[in-house]
Amino acid sequence: MIDLYAFATPNSIKVLIALEELGIDYVLHSVNVRNDEQKTAEFLALNPNGKVPVLVDTQSPSERLVLTESAAILVYLAEKNGRLLPADGPARARVFEQLFFHASGLGPAFGQAGFFQRHAAEPQPMALQRFSTEAARTVTVLDAVLSRNTYVAGNEFSIADIAHFGWFWRREFAGVSLEGAPHIARWFSEVSSRSAVQRAIERVRALTNH
Amino acid sequence: MIDLYAFATPNSIKVLIALEELGIDYVLHSVNVRNDEQKTAEFLALNPNGKVPVLVDTQSPSERLVLTESAAILVYLAEKNGRLLPADGPARARVFEQLFFHASGLGPAFGQAGFFQRHAAEPQPMALQRFSTEAARTVTVLDAVLSRNTYVAGNEFSIADIAHFGWFWRREFAGVSLEGAPHIARWFSEVSSRSAVQRAIERVRALTNH
Repeated sequence: MIDLYAFATPNSIKVLIALEELGIDYVLHSVNVRNDEQKTAEFLALNPNGKVPVLVDTQSPSERLVLTESAAILVYLAEKNGRLLPADGPARARVFEQLFFHASGLGPAFGQAGFFQRHAAEPQPMALQRFSTEAARTVTVLDAVLSRNTYVAGNEFSIADIAHFGWFWRREFAGVSLEGAPHIARWFSEVSSRSAVQRAIERVRALTNH
Repeated sequence: MIDLYAFATPNSIKVLIALEELGIDYVLHSVNVRNDEQKTAEFLALNPNGKVPVLVDTQSPSERLVLTESAAILVYLAEKNGRLLPADGPARARVFEQLFFHASGLGPAFGQAGFFQRHAAEPQPMALQRFSTEAARTVTVLDAVLSRNTYVAGNEFSIADIAHFGWFWRREFAGVSLEGAPHIARWFSEVSSRSAVQRAIERVRALTNH
């Protein structure tokens, strides 16, 4: 049985999309980060790093895996089900390259650009400039990748597309637009239209209505 | 044949350590980031994202893989050689969890803390505070992990240790000390003493002497 602790965040949505794509049943538990529920003692016992999402895979009462880090969860689900991640060769290496480009580059730049634009206690213009510029730069790098390939890691839809989708779905927070990125715009529209993606979005959106 | 484009940076050292641990021969090419050599047209043709390290694995003239993102390179080398990454189960999931915690959390916090401490054109006290606090927080999270395990992903040395080692080796840049992190200090000392790690450090240090 799969339990997922998540909210309507760029990292949470990735795991819902993967579960929907793979056709795996799961129980979704809301962790309202707007109310800092990811910092409660109960949640920190699950993830001492204080972040959503967290996946709990209970095979049996004695075998229970608690896994954090959205991209690690994507790799776990893909390998367990033998889908969304090529088994070997350059195609597999490209998926990991994009997963880590997202995790270490594009994701943090989007997150910090949004923070300094919206949540900083006092204006920090140089910091805002730094992260907005970096977010725009990573968009340009990814747009060039998508000018050559249908998907971010080649011509097959993979967990790397799911990872990047998370932040593009929430790009307004980061102040990122797709006006100068026609290839990402094409890709985003295509990924958005997948029925699994639409089901995932519907499920996380429902969490914010309570 | 393996060509590695790198410098004495937190991300570069990871790949040298993996190659030395695996006993793989490689040709090391210096990309002096202090002189912005990672932004030359020649280097950008290799990695449009403008970052070291880059690994080029030439199996034959027609089979040549150019791979970026240090952690993706670690996964590629570990899987190709069947070492430093458990084949399955929870032990494997823990390695990916730590690789992504490093890539998305600890690494960016260390990097930004160092930047705002040392390279910001004008002081940005709130930004410096934000990233120094976050760097210290991630250190506390990792110290708790290492209070339970010998290595960051369990009781076997893995590519996740290699990934974290990169930034702890360069922790002074980030203004991070291990005074309040006895378990990381124990682990760092143990990993530092591995002969493969010492050979890797010697090889990147030689690059800075030219």
